[in-house]
Amino acid sequence: MIVVMRLGATAKEVGQVIKTIEEMGFKPHLSKGEERTVIGVIGNERKFDPGRLEVLPGVEKVIPILRPFKLASREFHPDDTIVNVCGVQIGGREAVVMAGPCAVEDREQLFEAAEAVKRHGARLLRGGAFKPRTSPYAFQGLGRKGLELLREARERTGLPVVTECLAVQDLPAIVEFADVIQIGARNMQNFNLLEEVGRVQKPVLLKRGMMSTLEELLMSAEYILSKGNMNVILCERGIRTFEKYTRNTLDVSAVPVLKRLSHLPVVVDPSHAAGEKYLVGTLARAGIAAGADGIIVEVHPHPEHALCDGAQALLPSDFQKMMEELRLIARAIGREVAPSPDAAAPAAPATATSSPHDLRAEG
Amino acid sequence: MIVVMRLGATAKEVGQVIKTIEEMGFKPHLSKGEERTVIGVIGNERKFDPGRLEVLPGVEKVIPILRPFKLASREFHPDDTIVNVCGVQIGGREAVVMAGPCAVEDREQLFEAAEAVKRHGARLLRGGAFKPRTSPYAFQGLGRKGLELLREARERTGLPVVTECLAVQDLPAIVEFADVIQIGARNMQNFNLLEEVGRVQKPVLLKRGMMSTLEELLMSAEYILSKGNMNVILCERGIRTFEKYTRNTLDVSAVPVLKRLSHLPVVVDPSHAAGEKYLVGTLARAGIAAGADGIIVEVHPHPEHALCDGAQALLPSDFQKMMEELRLIARAIGREVAPSPDAAAPAAPATATSSPHDLRAEG
Amino acid sequence: MIVVMRLGATAKEVGQVIKTIEEMGFKPHLSKGEERTVIGVIGNERKFDPGRLEVLPGVEKVIPILRPFKLASREFHPDDTIVNVCGVQIGGREAVVMAGPCAVEDREQLFEAAEAVKRHGARLLRGGAFKPRTSPYAFQGLGRKGLELLREARERTGLPVVTECLAVQDLPAIVEFADVIQIGARNMQNFNLLEEVGRVQKPVLLKRGMMSTLEELLMSAEYILSKGNMNVILCERGIRTFEKYTRNTLDVSAVPVLKRLSHLPVVVDPSHAAGEKYLVGTLARAGIAAGADGIIVEVHPHPEHALCDGAQALLPSDFQKMMEELRLIARAIGREVAPSPDAAAPAAPATATSSPHDLRAEG
Amino acid sequence: MIVVMRLGATAKEVGQVIKTIEEMGFKPHLSKGEERTVIGVIGNERKFDPGRLEVLPGVEKVIPILRPFKLASREFHPDDTIVNVCGVQIGGREAVVMAGPCAVEDREQLFEAAEAVKRHGARLLRGGAFKPRTSPYAFQGLGRKGLELLREARERTGLPVVTECLAVQDLPAIVEFADVIQIGARNMQNFNLLEEVGRVQKPVLLKRGMMSTLEELLMSAEYILSKGNMNVILCERGIRTFEKYTRNTLDVSAVPVLKRLSHLPVVVDPSHAAGEKYLVGTLARAGIAAGADGIIVEVHPHPEHALCDGAQALLPSDFQKMMEELRLIARAIGREVAPSPDAAAPAAPATATSSPHDLRAEG
Repeated sequence: MIVVMRLGATAKEVGQVIKTIEEMGFKPHLSKGEERTVIGVIGNERKFDPGRLEVLPGVEKVIPILRPFKLASREFHPDDTIVNVCGVQIGGREAVVMAGPCAVEDREQLFEAAEAVKRHGARLLRGGAFKPRTSPYAFQGLGRKGLELLREARERTGLPVVTECLAVQDLPAIVEFADVIQIGARNMQNFNLLEEVGRVQKPVLLKRGMMSTLEELLMSAEYILSKGNMNVILCERGIRTFEKYTRNTLDVSAVPVLKRLSHLPVVVDPSHAAGEKYLVGTLARAGIAAGADGIIVEVHPHPEHALCDGAQALLPSDFQKMMEELRLIARAIGREVAPSPDAAAPAAPATATSSPHDLRAEG
Repeated sequence: MIVVMRLGATAKEVGQVIKTIEEMGFKPHLSKGEERTVIGVIGNERKFDPGRLEVLPGVEKVIPILRPFKLASREFHPDDTIVNVCGVQIGGREAVVMAGPCAVEDREQLFEAAEAVKRHGARLLRGGAFKPRTSPYAFQGLGRKGLELLREARERTGLPVVTECLAVQDLPAIVEFADVIQIGARNMQNFNLLEEVGRVQKPVLLKRGMMSTLEELLMSAEYILSKGNMNVILCERGIRTFEKYTRNTLDVSAVPVLKRLSHLPVVVDPSHAAGEKYLVGTLARAGIAAGADGIIVEVHPHPEHALCDGAQALLPSDFQKMMEELRLIARAIGREVAPSPDAAAPAAPATATSSPHDLRAEG
Repeated sequence: MIVVMRLGATAKEVGQVIKTIEEMGFKPHLSKGEERTVIGVIGNERKFDPGRLEVLPGVEKVIPILRPFKLASREFHPDDTIVNVCGVQIGGREAVVMAGPCAVEDREQLFEAAEAVKRHGARLLRGGAFKPRTSPYAFQGLGRKGLELLREARERTGLPVVTECLAVQDLPAIVEFADVIQIGARNMQNFNLLEEVGRVQKPVLLKRGMMSTLEELLMSAEYILSKGNMNVILCERGIRTFEKYTRNTLDVSAVPVLKRLSHLPVVVDPSHAAGEKYLVGTLARAGIAAGADGIIVEVHPHPEHALCDGAQALLPSDFQKMMEELRLIARAIGREVAPSPDAAAPAAPATATSSPHDLRAEG
Repeated sequence: MIVVMRLGATAKEVGQVIKTIEEMGFKPHLSKGEERTVIGVIGNERKFDPGRLEVLPGVEKVIPILRPFKLASREFHPDDTIVNVCGVQIGGREAVVMAGPCAVEDREQLFEAAEAVKRHGARLLRGGAFKPRTSPYAFQGLGRKGLELLREARERTGLPVVTECLAVQDLPAIVEFADVIQIGARNMQNFNLLEEVGRVQKPVLLKRGMMSTLEELLMSAEYILSKGNMNVILCERGIRTFEKYTRNTLDVSAVPVLKRLSHLPVVVDPSHAAGEKYLVGTLARAGIAAGADGIIVEVHPHPEHALCDGAQALLPSDFQKMMEELRLIARAIGREVAPSPDAAAPAAPATATSSPHDLRAEG
């Protein structure tokens, strides 16, 4: 932490800053510039509220130096974390595709979607039982009934299930029925929910708030990690910008930035960023090319009857095409996307696996 | 709702849109322009998911026409709502000042703050017992102990108490101890919490999310109203922008826009918008000049020892000066701010030109 | 400037940073924290490109300490600058109102507007001869013909004229015909134009870019000042945010922040921020309450025939009402707004409470 | 254009809207909903200022239906435009890489950079002679001397040259010396410059303003096209968001959105978006994966001595590695990036050229 004094700050004002730093158990370090005096604070600044210094007379501003997250930080945990979801490794060489409908609507819809995504190579099934909606008048999900259908779909297909938890009181049911607990963008700073999710031992898919910085995302991960749950998967899903032709703006740089700052796996949600079907496959390709550890995408067998977000849902045939493209992109950067389980023996991919470039290392 | 067809959409595509509108129980209204066909949807569009039409072939976009909120809307409730908090009217002629420390820290701090703000004309006492903090390592508030101190302070001063509720499980205690339930900016779209707060009959102070639109704020109010609690006070507290010299940017236009769109009272929080003490009084004046029904502001007797947000806390003497200024501004627009209870019979106000305060010097 | 080294940076890396700082003629100042080493750079950092250090191995980031502007800074010029426009003082005790149509359309429109704004107390006449339009198909202003009409209106009313300069090649004509050169929001970083405007000796009204920070605004002022023209008036006109019910968001904090950072006068443009007439008066009041040195506002005698921005234009009667309100607000903070020149001896102001205007109704 | 009337608008108010529409030579189309009346305006709304209707009593808002650009629109020009720069086709099957230093600093630096980028497959040389800088005290480029060096470098390497034009008065020299005129982000709405550039017959690389929407970018392209210059290349270079770990946020969705809305080629600038070298290659890969027609990237032989933006410059060896990666990604989507000219006969690429997916069509 660096305290910058105002131009013309008096010796007495500087003295009071130094005294306060010492009283709080830290070590001050004085440096006089041509125009201003700055005072370094030596110690673990994460436990030091900068407001204590900002209020002192003669202080212009206080600049933090350390990153505020520690458990989530690659500096303190250099190796990649790999989250194991019922045998599927997230954060390893394979880029994992999670797919399914926005909301669980009924048994037929869910099973049709689940079987389609499995057939084309998805490794996890997504589907919402509790839906956060801006309007109190909109469809809010099937609730516990939706969770039961997700469990049936999982038994049928063998795909582990990821579903969103909106409220602490729903957490026990979600822990019972699902394999990955999703924390949605609107709850990224619902600290109470983060703490409770940190106390269970299920993998968590933590979505970036649509107007949050990456540092805020990592601080929310820190909440979960600090309570003992180390299985956190970060998810970039688009941020709010002034652009109107997309629902949100996919921040593809989030992938390499997060991989550099943190050891946690990072997946990309192209559906919510796009808002329209025609963009989803393109954004998924960009995400994989940028080094994402996976993609979470919405697929609906009959989008024209979807109860929410039909406009961004892929048809099973769109999903198949996207998966073929993602396999080519993944190979080009030395990674892979799972083949369709029906595929014949996967012909030895020619060039890319032998690529000498470990592109992930760059991020 | 207006469906805009693509240039060159076929008659068959138009026909399918019309059919879908009819199937959903609405009435289509066709209009052919020079370049495009548009189709109006006649009926209560709040119950119509636009995604159903957006996915149809030939559709370019779907534009909503109606405002999505109804109970919060002035169109359906032309008269101002006045929220009664233990006899204090919020939304009437008086602009009500709520003040107190950011967080309850201990008995002495709270009582000193409470007595100071009362002495200078505050009508409600604010103070946080549960604090939402970006970092899991920061001070999180005293919890229930804080609520108990707030009750003591209220008994001592007679000021009703406003305090934040972060989680559904804390709601019963907050309902028991406080007079106004504050929903903070980070929980503005915690829909589960909004619903629960909608089921109790305590006034709610709903803060705008720091990256939310006014329509989203009104939709969150709609959640509370739709569950039966009609005592909602809206609060503008600054939004995130690219500006770095302020913590957030106070959107002063929010006051007249919300008053036009809605019948609910609107208050302004200059402390969180400013982030620095020197701005608080100026922003409070602007808020009152823009027609706010009140101000909620942070006051701390010893900001240099504050456990959070000390930099933006007013000293009691700053608060006194601000109150004097606000009384003059309120009078200039035909409203009033409560006098200090110690004041003798309110001497006929001298004209403002004789004010000894050079307010510009503050900025 | 502070160089923060990465965790684990080697002594050799630190040595190279120190050597580079010395080679550039600055003095390094080393400080070892518990986790990181930081190195201060002593000297006038405004002449030091941080990129030179950012590229060195082991460097995490470089943090500037000094403000990048100097001539515009209050630190180096503590007294308020007062800009004299043909005898009207901008930046003094009077809050100066500038008003007139968005664009000069024809003689009748301009003269009717000019006489109306003069009658109600405006001190300068505004009007665009060159209009920046997003669409090449929209009305682009009358050009030189517009300047000639402005000169006629000035002769008729005695009001000095402010008009926008869009291009260097138009500058000689604007210098000839106008009294204040306006640089619009879209040209705030047209550095070439700023330099040319800095070489003439006419007052400049510099509008904040609609997505610019206050520091960027002050750097643009610095461009003008650094070429020798010290008569710069800063103007806040609203910034782009996610809010849709206003055209832009008036950043009212800009007034006190700019007054603290700089000695230059600051005016507020409520018309472009609002985008709709019903908000203009309210925002003007907030601007004056926040300490603005003036207001620049659009008035049109027949907005329903305006060639641009009719929706935000005040009628002369609206303008009159706004002026009455601004006088009361200005007095409440110890300033003043010019009376109508037709007014008889300014009768002692009745107290504001007797104001017949129910201002809240406007919002 | 759709006029939405307020709830409770009177028949007289509706009548006046209809009359105004007719007076302006358009055809009204009335539609009464359950809550509101809406009135369609039939005709070419690009010539209709919505303000004319917004000011009428009873009107709530006016919603445009048509896209405001026409010459830039794919609707009116379905085939891809291919811009020919001295034989290099931009917008065809090849994704074209443009590279070189941020600023031309001296002969050695420029020639070393030019030869390096040519050696690894760049097809155009970039370099700034006129530099837009936020600070008047920063290096502003070599000016005409820089243009002369660029011409020398072009003669030496055979690479056509792209360089930025900041001001109308510099345009003749830039037309004389360069092959592509770059309009930088800060000048995207310098309409005067756009018009002048529209009057010459050189290709233009138009960068998106860092806070502009894609519609605004296309309107700026429309300015150039409307003056007769049809050789416009659009460039996404990152937009300002709240994220601090990147200089700007690369909006990778801009590529497919622009390809869908417009026939103009689209390139991506990963250097300015990233701000830091470690991100550049990753963002370039994402851009190509998203279907960009090219990449423009900064390369400096000695970034530690760069006079501007050294932190984001690639070394020649970084550039070589990036080019190898881009070739693999391009092939994965059925496109190609030029090989190094020194490369032996490019071995027939196995699979990807025979890929049945025309991924570009998706955008």
